[in-house]
Amino acid sequence: MIRTLSSRKWILVAALFPALFIPNLLASDAAVHEDPVAPLLLALIVILATAKGAGELFERLHMPAVLGELVGGIVLGNLILLNPAWSFFEPLRAQVMEIHWAVIIDGMARLGVIILLFEVGLESTVKGMMKVGTSSLFVAVVGVIAPFILGYGVSWMFIREVPVQIAAGMPAGFSVHYIHLFVGSVLCATSVGITARVFQDLGRLHTREAQIILGAAVIDDVLGLIVLAVVSSVISAAKVGQSIQVGSIFRLIAVAVLFLGGALTVGTFVIPRMMKLLAKLRTAGVMLLSSLLLAFLLSYLAGLAGLAGIVGAFAAGLLLERVHFREFREDIDIFRLIKPISTFLVPVFFVLMGIQVHLESFADLSVLGIAAGLTAAAVIGKQACAWGATGKALDRMSIGVGMIPRGEVGLIFASIGRSLKVVDGPTFSAIVIMVIVTTLVTPPLLKVTLSRGGKGAERLGVDSGIEK
Amino acid sequence: MIRTLSSRKWILVAALFPALFIPNLLASDAAVHEDPVAPLLLALIVILATAKGAGELFERLHMPAVLGELVGGIVLGNLILLNPAWSFFEPLRAQVMEIHWAVIIDGMARLGVIILLFEVGLESTVKGMMKVGTSSLFVAVVGVIAPFILGYGVSWMFIREVPVQIAAGMPAGFSVHYIHLFVGSVLCATSVGITARVFQDLGRLHTREAQIILGAAVIDDVLGLIVLAVVSSVISAAKVGQSIQVGSIFRLIAVAVLFLGGALTVGTFVIPRMMKLLAKLRTAGVMLLSSLLLAFLLSYLAGLAGLAGIVGAFAAGLLLERVHFREFREDIDIFRLIKPISTFLVPVFFVLMGIQVHLESFADLSVLGIAAGLTAAAVIGKQACAWGATGKALDRMSIGVGMIPRGEVGLIFASIGRSLKVVDGPTFSAIVIMVIVTTLVTPPLLKVTLSRGGKGAERLGVDSGIEK
Repeated sequence: MIRTLSSRKWILVAALFPALFIPNLLASDAAVHEDPVAPLLLALIVILATAKGAGELFERLHMPAVLGELVGGIVLGNLILLNPAWSFFEPLRAQVMEIHWAVIIDGMARLGVIILLFEVGLESTVKGMMKVGTSSLFVAVVGVIAPFILGYGVSWMFIREVPVQIAAGMPAGFSVHYIHLFVGSVLCATSVGITARVFQDLGRLHTREAQIILGAAVIDDVLGLIVLAVVSSVISAAKVGQSIQVGSIFRLIAVAVLFLGGALTVGTFVIPRMMKLLAKLRTAGVMLLSSLLLAFLLSYLAGLAGLAGIVGAFAAGLLLERVHFREFREDIDIFRLIKPISTFLVPVFFVLMGIQVHLESFADLSVLGIAAGLTAAAVIGKQACAWGATGKALDRMSIGVGMIPRGEVGLIFASIGRSLKVVDGPTFSAIVIMVIVTTLVTPPLLKVTLSRGGKGAERLGVDSGIEK
Repeated sequence: MIRTLSSRKWILVAALFPALFIPNLLASDAAVHEDPVAPLLLALIVILATAKGAGELFERLHMPAVLGELVGGIVLGNLILLNPAWSFFEPLRAQVMEIHWAVIIDGMARLGVIILLFEVGLESTVKGMMKVGTSSLFVAVVGVIAPFILGYGVSWMFIREVPVQIAAGMPAGFSVHYIHLFVGSVLCATSVGITARVFQDLGRLHTREAQIILGAAVIDDVLGLIVLAVVSSVISAAKVGQSIQVGSIFRLIAVAVLFLGGALTVGTFVIPRMMKLLAKLRTAGVMLLSSLLLAFLLSYLAGLAGLAGIVGAFAAGLLLERVHFREFREDIDIFRLIKPISTFLVPVFFVLMGIQVHLESFADLSVLGIAAGLTAAAVIGKQACAWGATGKALDRMSIGVGMIPRGEVGLIFASIGRSLKVVDGPTFSAIVIMVIVTTLVTPPLLKVTLSRGGKGAERLGVDSGIEK
């Protein structure tokens, strides 16, 4: 377990961690700069940190925090007077800025995804992942590999050449296999929120089957993020005309694992000390802002390391869990502090994903075929999980069915594919339909398989309404 | 008091209220469409309402709310298939969107201002405004008129012709007097947060002087919003080459008063019933989202009525106070629910205001002159308030000094001036400096005037740290 590492090992890992970023920082590579979230995160990090820092300073001098924020802003904006190279904030100072509301909604949705994965991380714990043991691990690994292969196959069957829309933005030799790779990776993630809800409604949340599924889902999140990191990097390289060797793929997997592991080890070391310091600050909202800053910072660093920003947000959530705050201020629950922000931003993401589905694209029967094929691949792929579960007298069929829903993580992957311009409109629409169908079929199917076992006649037909 | 109106009068006022908007809706006038916040608010209202509505429906059908949000989005995005005129969401569906992080930060700051004024409204109550009585009213009225006249004069002294930057966007006959008008209105608002803090630190918050100042500040907010509404409309008209008659100005004042009054009367009638309905919903975050929706909706309607969006946000806050939630769900305090969102978004506004100050513009001595002149006008103008206060044995000087700080409302007015393109870069910078200086000088000055009275030797030098 991470917390029992000796302090010598700590230092070693801590030293390795920043080294990961140096090549990317110097190379200033295309993948980072193409991602519009990276500069947004950087700007938010600098702005919010300045606001809190200067606000705190002014409070201590018995002046209002708001004045500190203002003066801090003046300093940031006028850094360029000291050095013309410090021009990062110039776009904010133009007298005429082309403001389009759609860009702002899009940005809010992107921040919503980061907050969402931060919350997912907050709800997961490293300890929890270790505890569920080998059964969950096998289920998770099989549940990532099988759908990936099937998804690749379906994409290969239906998409025989690079669509014109995509080809326009790619170099001449861009292979259609990159598209298959991405579609396959979209199918990896499991979203078991809905499954957990069905188990809960049936009063079966504490059965071994439920525990295996919930554990596997957390591991799936991590494995899915690694698959995404690798596939995205391969595609980013292909976009600038490079192909990636097998050796590089291992290097990418190593970066992803080291990033997650490094963030967690360094974080476990740094976070409690940081919290102790922050607890001394006077200005309002310190805990909330510092958590947000951590999520944004790790997302940004993940981008620099060539990973998706959500990997960093997830790591930030894992790090904060709920523990560290309680140690310093009993009354603060980080989950409750973040909730209003996610209530505001996360629905923007989901509605936007729906808005971007072009129903007219299903007039093309092949798109309908992709949707059906992907849905079948998603369902069948996860049935393989049933055989991954170890242990006697398990309701294997329920485990397979419970792993079917794709939900938010599949959508996030698809939206990243859109950003990378490797997923075109029709394929995006097909993926959304797959997400909807897999999520819709699970509850009735699960009720059938669970009652088939005859162990659970006591259905709670009534909604428990816990989430309200 | 509003709540004692007979129900017949209710219906009359309720019927008058929507009528205000009809001409503007049909005319689809320039002022509304120029404001980039209007379509952003409309999009957020539709998206969040759809998310909650569809989410609730799905929850009731025992399906995950998130799926409802997705399906709701599909419906919104594909409305265009039913009627090509329903194309509002098309900009969100473009495969390639030009995403610039600066636009997103700017949008977040604008939303931050709306949330900020919503909070100011939540902290004010109609009852409270009525109670402080005539003394506060006189102080407030004098404190709006005197700085307006002085500010107009300073602007007239330093800005003799329309700056090139501004002239480029205006019709040929655009008079420099419009700029003076706007600069004057920026000086109207009082931001007594800092004054309240000093009184609190000195243990004098319950003196008559403090109560008069706090009451006057709330009335100032309302008067300032009305002045802003009138001046903005005059300038919007001038921008399309129209000049406004005195009769129209009275119409504008009437619209502003009717909007605030109408929103408050209709709202007091509708809100409790709405809350009773909403309290029955199952999905999470209902209370938070419906409050945000109300703030966004009234901001949007204010825009349609030709007023600044913040007028609507303030009205929404006044309407919700804290009362209505407590009636239905004891555990929900709307102020606490909104706080994390304002902690996240409001600092973005203040830092952005600082970033937009071009220090190099002070190399031009005339800009330094404007800054000094505006600061003097701001300080002297509020001293007139001292004579507005009625009552014996009042520490009039402390009242005058306590009204000096301009703070956030002055900044918000200045940023609206930037949006209207009537405030150019140098003037904006001068206004920010005025805000900073007036806020900085108040605490030491106030300590002097208060101790001069000899009534308060017991200074609490130590920060009470209440806000943490």
